[in-house]
Amino acid sequence: MTTVLKLGGSVVTQKDQPETVDDGALATAARVVGESLGTTPDDPTASPGGESLVVVHGGGSFGHPAAAAHGVSASEGTRDAAALADIHRAMGRLNNRVVTALHATGVPALPVRPLSVVRRTNAGVTAPTAAVEGMLAEGFVPVLHGDVVVDETAGGTVCSGDTLVVALADALDADRLGVCSTVPGVLDGGEVVPEITGYEAVADVLGGSDATDVTGGMAGKVRALLDVDGPASIFGLDDLGRFLAAGQPGTTVR
Amino acid sequence: MTTVLKLGGSVVTQKDQPETVDDGALATAARVVGESLGTTPDDPTASPGGESLVVVHGGGSFGHPAAAAHGVSASEGTRDAAALADIHRAMGRLNNRVVTALHATGVPALPVRPLSVVRRTNAGVTAPTAAVEGMLAEGFVPVLHGDVVVDETAGGTVCSGDTLVVALADALDADRLGVCSTVPGVLDGGEVVPEITGYEAVADVLGGSDATDVTGGMAGKVRALLDVDGPASIFGLDDLGRFLAAGQPGTTVR
Repeated sequence: MTTVLKLGGSVVTQKDQPETVDDGALATAARVVGESLGTTPDDPTASPGGESLVVVHGGGSFGHPAAAAHGVSASEGTRDAAALADIHRAMGRLNNRVVTALHATGVPALPVRPLSVVRRTNAGVTAPTAAVEGMLAEGFVPVLHGDVVVDETAGGTVCSGDTLVVALADALDADRLGVCSTVPGVLDGGEVVPEITGYEAVADVLGGSDATDVTGGMAGKVRALLDVDGPASIFGLDDLGRFLAAGQPGTTVR
Repeated sequence: MTTVLKLGGSVVTQKDQPETVDDGALATAARVVGESLGTTPDDPTASPGGESLVVVHGGGSFGHPAAAAHGVSASEGTRDAAALADIHRAMGRLNNRVVTALHATGVPALPVRPLSVVRRTNAGVTAPTAAVEGMLAEGFVPVLHGDVVVDETAGGTVCSGDTLVVALADALDADRLGVCSTVPGVLDGGEVVPEITGYEAVADVLGGSDATDVTGGMAGKVRALLDVDGPASIFGLDDLGRFLAAGQPGTTVR
């Protein structure tokens, strides 16, 4: 069983404080992931042959302000290598924190940096998975993140975590895709919409995020997830354990 | 014209001082690379359509002590994700310094982390080059480094810069490969051997490096370069400009 899990940037960071991790939420997420894999805290040793889990986290208060400061988004690129490296390093600092938190709960996490792997062309995002597949085969948990990536004709642009999970789920032929968000699902008047099968039906209820998000908020998530072959779940941190235990909490996008 | 350039770890670091960059040597290398590309200092903006250059640097006093501390080498692996991340981060700190030095001389350098891309199996090293090729097409200079990579049956092992340049030169069908070392070439009694076409003929004169090197020193370099399709040059920092100007300084391995 191969699972791709997105941890929202607004889940693991305090989105309105520059470069601030939400330590409590990150520790909770790491603990729940460790419990689902049956790991031993502080012993992140990989064992081949178990469940395959790929984690992707968003940018939160690390990536989004850096991208905004340089005027870079998913559509607006730059050829300034120093600007791209600056955004990439901000995301690297968050990625380090996520990987370290996972190690503390025994999850054998290894960092995978999308700038090193992904190429965006007019045809879409190419994400070679040789290293990710190798890590999974050896029992590691690859941890990717929203990042800047090289972009045909535009230099470098932002490739969001939401775009990445979709590309990864396809490339790895994943069985399950989960998006852990700050809300318990797609909300319509305070109630979780249990299932979404097309964008138009829920266009009204999909607003933007509150804080700076260069990658499209909930509307962008749903649009991206509708492109995935299998079902995808959007749920809150409280439901992460239920999702990892093969449940379908929150909103299911088919 | 596509050139793959290795900057030796012992060129850009002080190999006997833990995690210490040789600032003078690194600045010199960055200046010479910038001059060869005709860049403007402090303006690392990529322009598509020029020369294609890929830089790979070694581990020097960043990677080698970290790898040795965790007992990891090209043949000895580990499944301890924290140990692999620790070695990888040490190399990331050096990679940041190299990228930043290149930006200062206007070289549009972007980091590429081998752990994110490379998979080693019994058949050898797979290095998908989608992102690297995308960077080159957009006029960037990818900067890779010796790293730990996921390794079939061994968890993770060291993939040296020397191994990487060979894999990259093949994958990119590079026209030229240069290895900038602390010596002016392969030495025999103080004299540079101008050409090497087989290992046995020079086995006597190839010794190890002076400091900790988990990846094989000059003997390993020559062995690896003999596997490359085109000619490869081994030369000192003083000859870097001559190599980049299409010369063949030092020792040529065919």
